Amino acid sequence: MDERIRKQLAFALEIDKEKSIFRQTHLSGHGRNENDAEHAWHMSIMAYLLREYANEEVDIAKVMIMCLIHDIVEIDAGDTYAYDTEALQSQKEREEAAKERIYSILPEDQKAEMIALFDEFEAYETPESKFAHAMDNLQPLVLNNANDGGDWREHEVTSKTVYGRQKLTALGSEKLFEVTDEIIQEHIRKGNLKE
Amino acid sequence: MDERIRKQLAFALEIDKEKSIFRQTHLSGHGRNENDAEHAWHMSIMAYLLREYANEEVDIAKVMIMCLIHDIVEIDAGDTYAYDTEALQSQKEREEAAKERIYSILPEDQKAEMIALFDEFEAYETPESKFAHAMDNLQPLVLNNANDGGDWREHEVTSKTVYGRQKLTALGSEKLFEVTDEIIQEHIRKGNLKE
Repeated sequence: MDERIRKQLAFALEIDKEKSIFRQTHLSGHGRNENDAEHAWHMSIMAYLLREYANEEVDIAKVMIMCLIHDIVEIDAGDTYAYDTEALQSQKEREEAAKERIYSILPEDQKAEMIALFDEFEAYETPESKFAHAMDNLQPLVLNNANDGGDWREHEVTSKTVYGRQKLTALGSEKLFEVTDEIIQEHIRKGNLKE
Repeated sequence: MDERIRKQLAFALEIDKEKSIFRQTHLSGHGRNENDAEHAWHMSIMAYLLREYANEEVDIAKVMIMCLIHDIVEIDAGDTYAYDTEALQSQKEREEAAKERIYSILPEDQKAEMIALFDEFEAYETPESKFAHAMDNLQPLVLNNANDGGDWREHEVTSKTVYGRQKLTALGSEKLFEVTDEIIQEHIRKGNLKE
């Protein structure tokens, strides 16, 4: 086996660990916590099926691979809950170290390619990044909506905090933000989200 | 929320169930059984990173979405172990019924698009289908290899049966079949696979 393919398969094995990084979101049917690999799979399919709603034209292959890899750094850095303000402060530093270690398993050119994709995702500037982030917001919303807002109730999250993150969906898709807004308003009416 | 987007989100919610369909493959580190969503996530990333080894040029977005959706039918039809000859006989019928029910949740045009992708995958004829199948074979091999062939030993699988499936990887990628062959031969030598 040549060195290049050996490195690629070593990376494939390493990312298996993402299946053991659990999120705050619960599966529908009031199920168990979801893991990062499942989340990434789900948002990639959603990106493909909802691409017609992107504000700008997107390279869908790029959006999908961005969605698929965006949480690989959490193998080392752990999941940071979107509404945990303390952990969010150290998140960047932890994820930078993780990025360097994990992507260094790949051949040099692919390390550079994957880090560029991750950095592009994080920078929130390109159409693909904005649309991938919209999926990162919408996917857990779909599950949480099906679970009567259980994840919000558990963390006593306020509508202000939720909007702080979910309003950014509009940068990727105005249409999907409209739907998001409709769902959030319903949970406020039902008392699942505090005003 | 208009009817189209309501259907798309209903489908997004439905496929959440794929995270509860467990396979015979175990996670690395002699972990728990893997589920279909994790498997699909893993093989899609591998497809992207290993695309240079495809025998023919592939549309990588198509390969990725094919990988991501290829097991959705198992939400109804269940997982069929690659080396369970009895279950394999009824697999086609069970999966056809599942395909019809699940994809009918989508708007008509997307139902047609997804079924066409699934059928193309199943037909094993296009470069994208052949390469996606190579990933469907290689991904569990990477895990099983890391686990000292535990999945084969558990099912007392023979090298002939394994080659029966894994040799098809060569249709998508000669290079990846070479690597596959190397790995299988090593497990035969170690006694993890019966001759």
